[in-house]
Amino acid sequence: MAVEAEREKKTRGRGSRRTRESRSANSNNQSRLPSKRAFKPVELLSDEAVEQVHRCSLDLLRDVGLEFDLPEACDILKRNGAMVDSDTGMVKFDPETVEHWVAQAQSSFSLSARNPARNLDIGGDNIAYGSAGSTPNVLDMDEGRRPGNSRDFENLVKLSHTLDTVDFFSGYPVEPTDRSVNTRHLDCNRDLLTLSDRVIRLYGIGKTRIDDGLDMISIAHGISRDELKDSPRALTVLNVNSPLKVDSTLLQGAMEMARNGQAVVVTPVAFAGAMSPITLSGSLIQHNAECLGVIALLQMVNPGTPVLYGSIISNVDMKSGAPALGTPETVTGTIASGQLARRYRLPTRLFSGCSSNAVDAQAAYETMFSLWACYLGGVNMVLHAHGYMETGLITSFEKVLLDSDLIGMMNALSRPIDLSDSKEALAAIKEVGPGGHYLSVAHTMSRYKNAFHSPLLSDWRAYEYWLKDGGKDYAQRASNKWKQLLEEYQKPDIDPAVEQALGEFAERRKREIGTAEI
Amino acid sequence: MAVEAEREKKTRGRGSRRTRESRSANSNNQSRLPSKRAFKPVELLSDEAVEQVHRCSLDLLRDVGLEFDLPEACDILKRNGAMVDSDTGMVKFDPETVEHWVAQAQSSFSLSARNPARNLDIGGDNIAYGSAGSTPNVLDMDEGRRPGNSRDFENLVKLSHTLDTVDFFSGYPVEPTDRSVNTRHLDCNRDLLTLSDRVIRLYGIGKTRIDDGLDMISIAHGISRDELKDSPRALTVLNVNSPLKVDSTLLQGAMEMARNGQAVVVTPVAFAGAMSPITLSGSLIQHNAECLGVIALLQMVNPGTPVLYGSIISNVDMKSGAPALGTPETVTGTIASGQLARRYRLPTRLFSGCSSNAVDAQAAYETMFSLWACYLGGVNMVLHAHGYMETGLITSFEKVLLDSDLIGMMNALSRPIDLSDSKEALAAIKEVGPGGHYLSVAHTMSRYKNAFHSPLLSDWRAYEYWLKDGGKDYAQRASNKWKQLLEEYQKPDIDPAVEQALGEFAERRKREIGTAEI
Repeated sequence: MAVEAEREKKTRGRGSRRTRESRSANSNNQSRLPSKRAFKPVELLSDEAVEQVHRCSLDLLRDVGLEFDLPEACDILKRNGAMVDSDTGMVKFDPETVEHWVAQAQSSFSLSARNPARNLDIGGDNIAYGSAGSTPNVLDMDEGRRPGNSRDFENLVKLSHTLDTVDFFSGYPVEPTDRSVNTRHLDCNRDLLTLSDRVIRLYGIGKTRIDDGLDMISIAHGISRDELKDSPRALTVLNVNSPLKVDSTLLQGAMEMARNGQAVVVTPVAFAGAMSPITLSGSLIQHNAECLGVIALLQMVNPGTPVLYGSIISNVDMKSGAPALGTPETVTGTIASGQLARRYRLPTRLFSGCSSNAVDAQAAYETMFSLWACYLGGVNMVLHAHGYMETGLITSFEKVLLDSDLIGMMNALSRPIDLSDSKEALAAIKEVGPGGHYLSVAHTMSRYKNAFHSPLLSDWRAYEYWLKDGGKDYAQRASNKWKQLLEEYQKPDIDPAVEQALGEFAERRKREIGTAEI
Repeated sequence: MAVEAEREKKTRGRGSRRTRESRSANSNNQSRLPSKRAFKPVELLSDEAVEQVHRCSLDLLRDVGLEFDLPEACDILKRNGAMVDSDTGMVKFDPETVEHWVAQAQSSFSLSARNPARNLDIGGDNIAYGSAGSTPNVLDMDEGRRPGNSRDFENLVKLSHTLDTVDFFSGYPVEPTDRSVNTRHLDCNRDLLTLSDRVIRLYGIGKTRIDDGLDMISIAHGISRDELKDSPRALTVLNVNSPLKVDSTLLQGAMEMARNGQAVVVTPVAFAGAMSPITLSGSLIQHNAECLGVIALLQMVNPGTPVLYGSIISNVDMKSGAPALGTPETVTGTIASGQLARRYRLPTRLFSGCSSNAVDAQAAYETMFSLWACYLGGVNMVLHAHGYMETGLITSFEKVLLDSDLIGMMNALSRPIDLSDSKEALAAIKEVGPGGHYLSVAHTMSRYKNAFHSPLLSDWRAYEYWLKDGGKDYAQRASNKWKQLLEEYQKPDIDPAVEQALGEFAERRKREIGTAEI
């Protein structure tokens, strides 16, 4: 609640949300709905089954443990009661130690954006959808498939900004591979913080990038680094190299985020059959153990650090070993892992992905299965939810729009069924009478503009009209639309002094870093 | 339960299901899963809101009523306490009359197929998915869009038969427009009953077609017309010409089905803004009143008649007036109408449809929204679930496979998460150790064949391999596959004497009917 009050305070005096929102390219669609679930998450595991997975995970942490190949992490773990084998880096945990530290994590928190209207409430029934992140390649129907570059990166940031469904940036919506890896974060953070106004993700590839990122967020938000510690304004993702091995570079970054009170998404990747046991039950046990062990460490670093419990459970194609996203196993695994996360009162994250190579029916159904997995599983942050294809190897401009459409429709499920209207409805039914139609009665005319959700690109015309207009399928319509949206892009308000300071910071740090490896 | 025992009895001595199933073209996929919901339907309306819709619907039936333009129906309604205005055909109902008769309907029943392995349990957590039905046109990628003919009809019946996901025929999977409308039912029923073995739908266009159909089902099932009355073996659909007007030709057929103890699907069509009020609350009230009034009549005709409560609620595109299927309103409307149906302990039906003109992303996402509406809304029979496009104007061969894939994935949600495996899983995790992989360990090797659901046509290969193989999108892959499945089609077992009798019946009735209108 302190966070809430803080947020309220910061919101005042920055201009109403409506003013800003009215600029967004699809704001003519309808007023943006809060991304909240319309009904409770569902359950697949019995309470006893949840307890069994919990106990097996604790057994695994006690008897086998996790590998932390980072001395500073091992020191903290040792100091707080974990058993560290310094030869192997294997760390074993008592059940009590795990439970004590995991209980320090917050069950919900707010992530503040540069634009307070874009602050995110994480936890409970909230769902926030991110841009794509970290994909090396980009695809559009005009220029085809290619490695991402600065122009694609900027266009995807701008396109994301025009879409009301993009609640935050899951990272760089494509990697600008023409920017030096050592200083890419400086250029990219500057662009993300000036071309848009949403919450951003910092890449935790070591401590330096996180520190640079936090400096830039402080500049953008007009606060000091000390003030930044008061409430989370950025997230990072800490992957576990499942099974049981914590990535030490990402861990350095995540620990730096924790020290600064910023959000860490803990993400084991349980692709059953490859990185976790082939059974969903075995995958859940391993995945839960990995989440709990890493979350315990982050709470040792800074009790109360806002964390998200990663819920990435899917399967591999047993013919090729290739991971498959948006499968039935994604849905059942996510529902089950959501039950576990709620047992620990932790907010959760998943991604919305697909393994399709084209913006076709497969892309749509795999993404829908991913989105429904999130919706039904109680997931709070959905990373990579706009444009992600090929199991994360590519961002497609056309699929950005498809995904925005799908998320817009999921959000529209929250439009309430308003029964206060029943008297007028009964009168309208009487007025129309048997066999009539409602198209022109007053009850319809006074409501038709906002009665229903309007998708961006669904084409409901009769076949003949559709054909006459070129017979364009969804991908072709999306190809036209994203270019139109880019043309309509308007840069969000920013204090020129802040923008200049961000640019100067980036340039100074680029000079300092030069070509040195960081 | 009497029905269950009956079913058991009839099942014996007809050969095991496994023998028959092993012939189906995708039986190498995995063993067919029962189409049962993996979790309970969800709720959007509070209990009070459900009661409010209920009361408003009863008010509507009392104060306005429904139009029944059929004297034999009006006579029955009058005899059973409804108030009939014989000048206008308007029939008003006391709330008590409605509630009394609706309570006579069965909350669940079994529909027997020619092949007992294909009997359907209707009600509770069961979901059955049908073929397309009644579409005038057909589409495939080789020959394009055209009116349906006998060859298309036969091919779609055969293709449906190869697919484990087709639980019944929702009607003619395309209208064979080259067959005379007066005798089409004879040829089509013969084909449906010999080329496949699933439950079929009879078109209730008057009494004669129903009687012919019931005769043919009796022949196919080897029972007398009197024995047929013991349990339902066919369904018909009674549309309401919403608002408030019951189609009298279909009503004749439906009443004949009721007299014979066969199943009637009562289907008001609530396209909000055109055929029902523009608000979902108003649409629910009208739709519920229409369902209850017609179900009351059918119970007056024959108490206990198996009926399904139609749950077709969607919206129209307010720009064009065209209906739109698979929208967010489909999902919320279906969830709410499912709550109403469960209040009356009635099984429900919806269809799975889309308004797309191409087998593209829109086709997939609209169908997925329809399927999730059914799944979350507790729907028991999903009509038109294979191939339906253009809001019902067309059946697409390629979309038959897309829909089969989607339904197969929905059914796979019922694969249980088996925790009895946890000890072996823990041993496998220990064996693999930090940073290893599971691809070749014994725990994986002994389970990989059936570990995960295998979609028919999802392509999970890396981009390069996919491209080298032609870079085919889903629709192109489906175009190859349906022809392969048709080649692999095997006619189900049938007693040659039964087949001959069906043919002779059809020929005799065709001669009798000739060109007369029936």
